[in-house]
Amino acid sequence: MPEYVHGGDVYSYAERRGAMPLDLSANISPFGIPEAVRQAMHAAVEDCTRYPDPFCRAARRAIGAAEGVDPDWIYCGNGAADVLDRLAAVLRPRTALLTAPTFAEYERTLAGAGLRFHRLRADEGFAVTARLLADITPDTDAVYLCNPNNPTGRTIEPRVLHRVVEKCAENGVWLIVDECFNDFLIDAARHTLKSLLGDYPKLVLLRAYTKMYAVPGVRFGWCMTSNRALIEDLYRAGQPWNVSVVAQACAVAAAGERAYAAQTAVRIAYARAELAAELAARGLTVFPGEANFLLFRSSDRGLHDKLAARGVLIRNCANYRGLEAGYYRTAVKTANQTARLLAALDEIQEES
Amino acid sequence: MPEYVHGGDVYSYAERRGAMPLDLSANISPFGIPEAVRQAMHAAVEDCTRYPDPFCRAARRAIGAAEGVDPDWIYCGNGAADVLDRLAAVLRPRTALLTAPTFAEYERTLAGAGLRFHRLRADEGFAVTARLLADITPDTDAVYLCNPNNPTGRTIEPRVLHRVVEKCAENGVWLIVDECFNDFLIDAARHTLKSLLGDYPKLVLLRAYTKMYAVPGVRFGWCMTSNRALIEDLYRAGQPWNVSVVAQACAVAAAGERAYAAQTAVRIAYARAELAAELAARGLTVFPGEANFLLFRSSDRGLHDKLAARGVLIRNCANYRGLEAGYYRTAVKTANQTARLLAALDEIQEES
Repeated sequence: MPEYVHGGDVYSYAERRGAMPLDLSANISPFGIPEAVRQAMHAAVEDCTRYPDPFCRAARRAIGAAEGVDPDWIYCGNGAADVLDRLAAVLRPRTALLTAPTFAEYERTLAGAGLRFHRLRADEGFAVTARLLADITPDTDAVYLCNPNNPTGRTIEPRVLHRVVEKCAENGVWLIVDECFNDFLIDAARHTLKSLLGDYPKLVLLRAYTKMYAVPGVRFGWCMTSNRALIEDLYRAGQPWNVSVVAQACAVAAAGERAYAAQTAVRIAYARAELAAELAARGLTVFPGEANFLLFRSSDRGLHDKLAARGVLIRNCANYRGLEAGYYRTAVKTANQTARLLAALDEIQEES
Repeated sequence: MPEYVHGGDVYSYAERRGAMPLDLSANISPFGIPEAVRQAMHAAVEDCTRYPDPFCRAARRAIGAAEGVDPDWIYCGNGAADVLDRLAAVLRPRTALLTAPTFAEYERTLAGAGLRFHRLRADEGFAVTARLLADITPDTDAVYLCNPNNPTGRTIEPRVLHRVVEKCAENGVWLIVDECFNDFLIDAARHTLKSLLGDYPKLVLLRAYTKMYAVPGVRFGWCMTSNRALIEDLYRAGQPWNVSVVAQACAVAAAGERAYAAQTAVRIAYARAELAAELAARGLTVFPGEANFLLFRSSDRGLHDKLAARGVLIRNCANYRGLEAGYYRTAVKTANQTARLLAALDEIQEES
């Protein structure tokens, strides 16, 4: 089997060690599945005797209403990763520009493209700055941005991002902005590009309910674009029944939980500030992040293994392009879970 | 949105008519989800807070044990359709041979290939015969067969099929045999090519639990091949989290229900014989089929619309390559459901 390069691989851990770890390597809300979403998923189990709606009509209507976006501008997939696969298959960029570091799935889906990497700098806290603009050239076919970025949690300053949108439009460049962690920002509305969709037909926004509603196992994500031809092509780029009945029902229910999302973002923001302070107090370099995870650096390149031996899984970021051994990402979780991480860190420090 | 070409589109029906139809257009077991499978799916809803296992380890172990196949010879997908998409992306045949008629998804996934069609003949009951052998030439890259075939329900005579396997091997041709309806055969073991997998590394068998366990909404299918390099490539051909937590749990439970499957096949065989006799008694030409559906012909090219107006959805087969208007497919269901179909047919006949 091919190597698995992401966080959240609790099954390999369980096979090796016989028990599930505390998983801080995947960026999932620690508050569980909201009750209305859970109930909708259970109800949907009984509806699995039918094929799923290939056009996800109920889910698109619910998301459209919640997001203030035309349902016909929405394409739903088997997780955001399915949408990324289809986007790559449809857009087939010859040249694509990615930041380094960023989420590894963009690069995987763009295996056939010539890739250019815009290096983010540790001494700038891995911020995307106006430096990016110079790399958006007329021979670029597509730019992929993640906002807030993964694994850093950094947002792009809206003024800079709007200049990126403009420059892409001027040069006829597709701009894919992954907003899958937008929900976790306490100023989410300031950062989403939803309001620009109508004016920029080559702008595509990626979203998921996975993280906020703690349902990565159900597989639901979507993109938004005013480009109806692109949406037609996305439907044609793979099987018609890609989104399960349970996932569609989950999305309908999750779209009704916007207040829960806003509340969760605030709770996570408090927990993140505390976690950052605790990590810094232990001599770790913590990078500024605004999502439900934090990137940090340690002089200990085997920290992830030592934590795993203590039942705590964090994301070793050594395999991120643009990072190296010693970089780690941890999810922001409940006070109890954070306490377990910190206790394990203290143990490791005492032993060294 | 693109045109939807398959059966089971109950959502469009419901949007137009405000109620769900009796759906005989999708070939799903009428006996519902087995209780153990239902319970496993409900339990799995609670586990959706984790990403799915990208390697479907528990599901492959359970299927391997149930099917007597090495779990490492199994690749699981988001429905058999996902596996078909990945197979096409990996094998990239320049020339592929399909029968006409057959399941439309093969052709969709092979959009980039030069396609050759082996016409099945109405006067042979649409059987695949030794005539097929002549079309398997050294310049053929892949042959797709469906056994029993969809929409006919016909199996290929094992002696003929074994000659096809041999001829493909001699010519270095990939042979993909879709056995998704094998479970419904009362002599299933006689028809599956499982025992040949070890000797034929270019043989790939496609399976799903969708139909037998009435779970098309959950999305689970798999293929079996002794070709480990192909399996590696299938993992790499798309996102790592394609099979949901609910689908994997469903598969584990379904693999434990082999006795249920054998029983269901017998019940369906009785119901099919009765349905065939009733359709024939109404002057319809019924083609011999061994699965949970029947292909028939009517002189009425609008029969499907008249039935839909009476709340009964059958599959209009006019859009199958190799068929034409007047061909229809109906699922074999419970006595009650069949009675509704027959009553509607009688009403239509009285009115004309």
